Amino acid sequence: MHNQSGQGRIVVMTKIVVVGGDAAGASAASQIKRRQPDFDVVVIERGQYTSYAACGLPYWVSGTIPTRESLIARSAAKHRANGLDVRLDSEVIGLDPQRAVVRVVADGVESDESYDQLIIATGASPIQPAIPGADAPNVVVIHSIPGTEYLMNRLSADQPRSAVVVGAGYIGIEMVEALRDRGLSVTVIDAAPGPMVSLDPDMSALVAAEFANLGVTGVFGQAIAGIETDSNGVATAVTTDSGERFPADIVILALGVRPNAGFAAAAGLPVGRSGGLLTDRRQAVVGHANIWAAGDVVETYHRLLRTTMHVPLGTHANKQGRVVGVNVAGGYLTFPGIIGTAITRVGAAHIARTGLTEAQAAAAGFATVSARVATPVLAHYMPDHGTMHTKVLAERGTGRLLGGQIIGDHVGAAKRIDTLATAIWSGWTAEDLTSMDLAYAPPFSPVWDPVQVAARRAADLAQSTNSAR
Amino acid sequence: MHNQSGQGRIVVMTKIVVVGGDAAGASAASQIKRRQPDFDVVVIERGQYTSYAACGLPYWVSGTIPTRESLIARSAAKHRANGLDVRLDSEVIGLDPQRAVVRVVADGVESDESYDQLIIATGASPIQPAIPGADAPNVVVIHSIPGTEYLMNRLSADQPRSAVVVGAGYIGIEMVEALRDRGLSVTVIDAAPGPMVSLDPDMSALVAAEFANLGVTGVFGQAIAGIETDSNGVATAVTTDSGERFPADIVILALGVRPNAGFAAAAGLPVGRSGGLLTDRRQAVVGHANIWAAGDVVETYHRLLRTTMHVPLGTHANKQGRVVGVNVAGGYLTFPGIIGTAITRVGAAHIARTGLTEAQAAAAGFATVSARVATPVLAHYMPDHGTMHTKVLAERGTGRLLGGQIIGDHVGAAKRIDTLATAIWSGWTAEDLTSMDLAYAPPFSPVWDPVQVAARRAADLAQSTNSAR
Repeated sequence: MHNQSGQGRIVVMTKIVVVGGDAAGASAASQIKRRQPDFDVVVIERGQYTSYAACGLPYWVSGTIPTRESLIARSAAKHRANGLDVRLDSEVIGLDPQRAVVRVVADGVESDESYDQLIIATGASPIQPAIPGADAPNVVVIHSIPGTEYLMNRLSADQPRSAVVVGAGYIGIEMVEALRDRGLSVTVIDAAPGPMVSLDPDMSALVAAEFANLGVTGVFGQAIAGIETDSNGVATAVTTDSGERFPADIVILALGVRPNAGFAAAAGLPVGRSGGLLTDRRQAVVGHANIWAAGDVVETYHRLLRTTMHVPLGTHANKQGRVVGVNVAGGYLTFPGIIGTAITRVGAAHIARTGLTEAQAAAAGFATVSARVATPVLAHYMPDHGTMHTKVLAERGTGRLLGGQIIGDHVGAAKRIDTLATAIWSGWTAEDLTSMDLAYAPPFSPVWDPVQVAARRAADLAQSTNSAR
Repeated sequence: MHNQSGQGRIVVMTKIVVVGGDAAGASAASQIKRRQPDFDVVVIERGQYTSYAACGLPYWVSGTIPTRESLIARSAAKHRANGLDVRLDSEVIGLDPQRAVVRVVADGVESDESYDQLIIATGASPIQPAIPGADAPNVVVIHSIPGTEYLMNRLSADQPRSAVVVGAGYIGIEMVEALRDRGLSVTVIDAAPGPMVSLDPDMSALVAAEFANLGVTGVFGQAIAGIETDSNGVATAVTTDSGERFPADIVILALGVRPNAGFAAAAGLPVGRSGGLLTDRRQAVVGHANIWAAGDVVETYHRLLRTTMHVPLGTHANKQGRVVGVNVAGGYLTFPGIIGTAITRVGAAHIARTGLTEAQAAAAGFATVSARVATPVLAHYMPDHGTMHTKVLAERGTGRLLGGQIIGDHVGAAKRIDTLATAIWSGWTAEDLTSMDLAYAPPFSPVWDPVQVAARRAADLAQSTNSAR
């Protein structure tokens, strides 16, 4: 691209087009502008918001966060003040890699936008089940600010007393908590045998027990079959494939998301089984040196499963966005992949996991041992010491750590998954973790950290030794 | 050793003598008895308590823990029920490695006790300054249950209104908190320029600021010179080498501890500069295949400083005790050393550290960069998100992580030092930590974990790259 500078010289400006202005896109764009202020960075966002905290939406619903504005980390105006050319309400509908242009529609008008480097950060969209009644006005999907705002308006206007949440994954259980906090009677339905299929069944059962504590009805092993509506088309109940019927004044669909890779796939960019874009280690789209992708639109390499998969989490989006930004700005950075770390909360169950479940490990061919311990979170003699359940999965024989899960009733419990994640990432054995130097004082931990208690037991079961390194 | 069995056969019993019945000794003894029930395990304890939580003593003083009994993890009676031959009020005063006997005094009577394998777990004793007035009845050292009980009795009987705590290390600041919680007016004195010399000066300053918040008077850069007493010999004030005088109704000495290696050193067992016993990787005393040592009586290998040092912490004592137990029982286990992880609390300052300080790193010859960030502990839009200061020290150029320090006002903050400890232990670069997979959800963390925010900045300063591993 060429630009007439004030001095009459011809300056070659590198033009970066970023499609999507949320976590991954805005991170990449900001990183580029900071490192290369002369680059022309255009951000094309189909909605009205940039850099908002999608993960915070359930806490806006619950009333924990008072206003929508708190969730916006950086508005379009702020991004513009930092030199980004942010275009809202503009959607990319086509891509021609040969000509290096994207087709944009804004205000109903289509135009071409050329790029030197393209960054695809279009995120993901919620899965809409193809069932009758799913388009009723009181059937809501939580994903974006406008969708959540719609729910908030319905909650105010209709004053629903009962809700059915379909899907007991992360978003589902966070919505269960949010609606219960608002005083609704809540039922949660999932086709899986229990909530949180990313946990082992014994840990999932602890989440189900917390639903019971909270007075939430958990319905598992039943898939949604339809949504009954009244003569006005308003949803009144959810039916399942077991023939059961669960009345609801409002229905929340939380059935997961799919990558928004439509225009990119149509242009021949490579996608994986999930439909997410495939990238190399620097987050360049495979086969396209000047097209990059990051966030919920890509598949990410799972280091333990040795394959790419769709893991739509804000933390990966931000980190991948940074990697893209550094690389596009002329630096060098790789994204190392993930190991499936995640955390959430429902009521007093603070839930975290990393690495493989028993089922994932078995499918990958590992023979494993697992240890689950229930311990206080703090020294047992401290008041309010809480309880945490810590599970460690290790390879038989070698004792190599493969997975960890924690459910605790204490704010200091679940984040300890990070210690397990770091150890698993490093290829430690259970014995390595058992004998290493974690922080201990009575207000913070028992003298053997619960993570080490579980690791110690797993080490004994695996008959592993440490590496004396 | 020989024993006449019920069937008239002669059975060779292995006899283990464990000197010291607290963390390290009791852990070792229990581990042995569990793995080798036929072993004769004698525990010789000079006091009246076994397996008590010395680290919990400040919380008994503060009133957080109601009774002494809560601090006893396993009483002598319980150990006996598990098959250990526990002998209280019995002190080892001599050792003859050639004859494989220890000299024991109990009830004023001396006797020899032979062993096949000896375990020395005699702990450490508080340093008593050689200054006038240190033996006044209201000058107290916190170390053991009896010492703390003495303090509790004085607090009840004398109803002191002001206290001077001498020493602003871990025990010192925990006693500051405890006495303040009891309503005393507290002054803390330390010869160092600030509290907690195990922190960098900028982090130490945050602790000093919390003292101010708490209304505690911090006196730094002044060494204790003497303790003034009245005509009854009761302490009335502490004087310093700067000529200042601090009145006190009660004085707490918290000047650190020294290894109880007297009889062992006298018998020729090797000790390091601190006077602590030197062991090999399996915790066998160097040069003595059948003598083992663990806990506060030994020097421990510091993996980053590449030397042994005296680090008297309950967590190491328990872990080393386990290692000794496994090895004495015929197994194989090494203790991998430490990296200086520690945690404590004073008021709202939750303090943790791991690895090297800037001064330690410089003394070891490292050129370093450091990054300190102040962030919310949780997502910034969550209520009560708190604040944490996270500091990361990395090697210049390589970006290899060398140290971390955290001070936060939130219970979820300081324990994140474990993530840094695990990363440092594994030899990660700051960039490795920045891009790895830690747990994120708004009630638990900002989308970039504060540890990663600090690491990211350190990576930029060090100009490190990740290893794309």
